Amino acid sequence: MSTEPVHLGKKFELFSDQWQPRVVAEMNDVQFKLVRVEGEFVWHDHSETDEAFLVVEGELEIDLPDRTIRLGEGELFVVPRGVQHRPRAVSEAKIMLVEPRGVTNTGDAGGDRTAPNDIWI
Amino acid sequence: MSTEPVHLGKKFELFSDQWQPRVVAEMNDVQFKLVRVEGEFVWHDHSETDEAFLVVEGELEIDLPDRTIRLGEGELFVVPRGVQHRPRAVSEAKIMLVEPRGVTNTGDAGGDRTAPNDIWI
Repeated sequence: MSTEPVHLGKKFELFSDQWQPRVVAEMNDVQFKLVRVEGEFVWHDHSETDEAFLVVEGELEIDLPDRTIRLGEGELFVVPRGVQHRPRAVSEAKIMLVEPRGVTNTGDAGGDRTAPNDIWI
Repeated sequence: MSTEPVHLGKKFELFSDQWQPRVVAEMNDVQFKLVRVEGEFVWHDHSETDEAFLVVEGELEIDLPDRTIRLGEGELFVVPRGVQHRPRAVSEAKIMLVEPRGVTNTGDAGGDRTAPNDIWI
């Protein structure tokens, strides 16, 4: 559990790789993760949990089965559990994820885009 | 559960009263709440849960028993469960709280600063 203030912008300066979420804080069993994204991710879902995306900088698109969600800075979107989604960004975007501890980035899809989990920064 | 994007800035424009949290989204049983704060709140704690504060605009101070946390825009802090705290702001600040559904603003302290709970906007 973090008991120090977390400056999101400064935390983002500590890494540059994309699609590799870093945990910066926990609220009970919920983690706040920062991730840089660019290009297209894989379609996947999380059968056990919703997943919240907050755009800290840049623009994020989230493809859903029936529509595409477009998010700018300061916009929040919750992908409901079990719903297939594909995040993508034309240019690099900085995102904060809010989701339970233990969620992997590729969810039920797995594959070579799966990042190490529970990496703190 | 929200299935529409939530623009934090635009949501803040929909209300002006202070210390009255509004729910804008849920991730599982966790709520994202927006609140305008100014002046000094009451000392209180939440015995059952941590509470996350993210400063969207302005500056927030959180007095703890042994120190004061100072947060600027884009800074996140998690008050651990059971820890007495007193939020305050010299001028109005816009805050996003992340905490489980059912948490009241005054926690175990109660009193006349207690706001209606689970009010969506």
